[in-house]
Amino acid sequence: MNLIILLQQDFTDDSHVTLTDKRFEHIRKVHQSSVGDRVKLGRLNGMMGSGIITAINDHKVDIEVELNQAPPKKLPLKVILALPRPKMIRRIFRSIAELGIEELIVINSYKVEKSFWNSPALTDEKVEGYLIAGLQQAKDTVLPKVSFQRLFKPFVEDELAAIAQGSRGIIAHPATGKPCPHAINERAVLAIGPEGGFTEYEVNKFIDAGFEGIHLGDRILRVENALAAITSKLY
Amino acid sequence: MNLIILLQQDFTDDSHVTLTDKRFEHIRKVHQSSVGDRVKLGRLNGMMGSGIITAINDHKVDIEVELNQAPPKKLPLKVILALPRPKMIRRIFRSIAELGIEELIVINSYKVEKSFWNSPALTDEKVEGYLIAGLQQAKDTVLPKVSFQRLFKPFVEDELAAIAQGSRGIIAHPATGKPCPHAINERAVLAIGPEGGFTEYEVNKFIDAGFEGIHLGDRILRVENALAAITSKLY
Repeated sequence: MNLIILLQQDFTDDSHVTLTDKRFEHIRKVHQSSVGDRVKLGRLNGMMGSGIITAINDHKVDIEVELNQAPPKKLPLKVILALPRPKMIRRIFRSIAELGIEELIVINSYKVEKSFWNSPALTDEKVEGYLIAGLQQAKDTVLPKVSFQRLFKPFVEDELAAIAQGSRGIIAHPATGKPCPHAINERAVLAIGPEGGFTEYEVNKFIDAGFEGIHLGDRILRVENALAAITSKLY
Repeated sequence: MNLIILLQQDFTDDSHVTLTDKRFEHIRKVHQSSVGDRVKLGRLNGMMGSGIITAINDHKVDIEVELNQAPPKKLPLKVILALPRPKMIRRIFRSIAELGIEELIVINSYKVEKSFWNSPALTDEKVEGYLIAGLQQAKDTVLPKVSFQRLFKPFVEDELAAIAQGSRGIIAHPATGKPCPHAINERAVLAIGPEGGFTEYEVNKFIDAGFEGIHLGDRILRVENALAAITSKLY
């Protein structure tokens, strides 16, 4: 936790917060902070800065905050991701926020098991928690936009063109010809399939919408490594 | 598991193996293979190819193998990594093999807790298991070389120069001036610190040995994302 994210309800007035949950535990146990110590803070979707601890006991910490620093810019990148298996959702969503991706669109795909859509990891509250964990790691305050598209065909046929307009469309697919480009310096929309990959039908739907297929060489990376790898090559 | 790694003891003769462990379970339950089906195989530190299932029951699978394909080349990259906390060792070691890194040197650092060195995750058998999992994901057969250096100062003063000779030395450190270069097309040795980073003293030891400091922008990535991100920018 390199930055503690503050929520609306933490504020007792414009410049004071009281924390009692795991952020308090982190300040007390990991930082081992005491009165007068400074901690790095940011307001969710707002400014970043720091705070001085004015009181701390076994139950809560009071902090006087000064938020005067803009959060880092997002990468000009939207990611379209086939719904990962539930065990991976937390880690991948956290990485989306950590890497600075501005928007995530989670889609269905032939190789996504139907039951994955019922995962308790997909509640609004859980998803926001994963994203905030990523922001707290990366030192950012701005939640990426996240949406879900449970029907593949209407999504690629009716919505994809508008999403990709003005951006370079890229689909990661091990079998395709071109290596992933480096440092592209333009807006992009990146599609990443499920474990086992998109089907040929699905890949072709993206190609029809103007996407270019890219690969990462001979190695097949797990989704979370492919996400970090491609994002980092592109920007 | 995109490639099943075969060990010496699996072979009943030059071209036949019998599997009874979780690789067998994977073939039976995940692939749901039957006699005559083909599976992708590779011999640890050897050639890759495929095999045809000649018999399968509830306890074992017999496969006739044909290994005639060279494994993919490693990246010309050695990674020097501060020992991660035990919970992360498996994932990070697996990624080292998955990403195609040729050598991993695990070192001590001020912010590595002493107890981490006693982790049961560090036995030879466990470490090899993590690496093989990465190879099976990536479709590679060659184990990266892994070594451990429990004393920081003798390592950087007596061994680092020889390790970095003929390579570009790079140390990831958020506070340093230059962004991580892209597509360097040369051998490199990359040093990555623990959570919380290397100390200034430690960074300076690498700088003294000719390493250049690089950063990944305003965001602080977790070690596993930094590893995939920097590796992918460099190559």
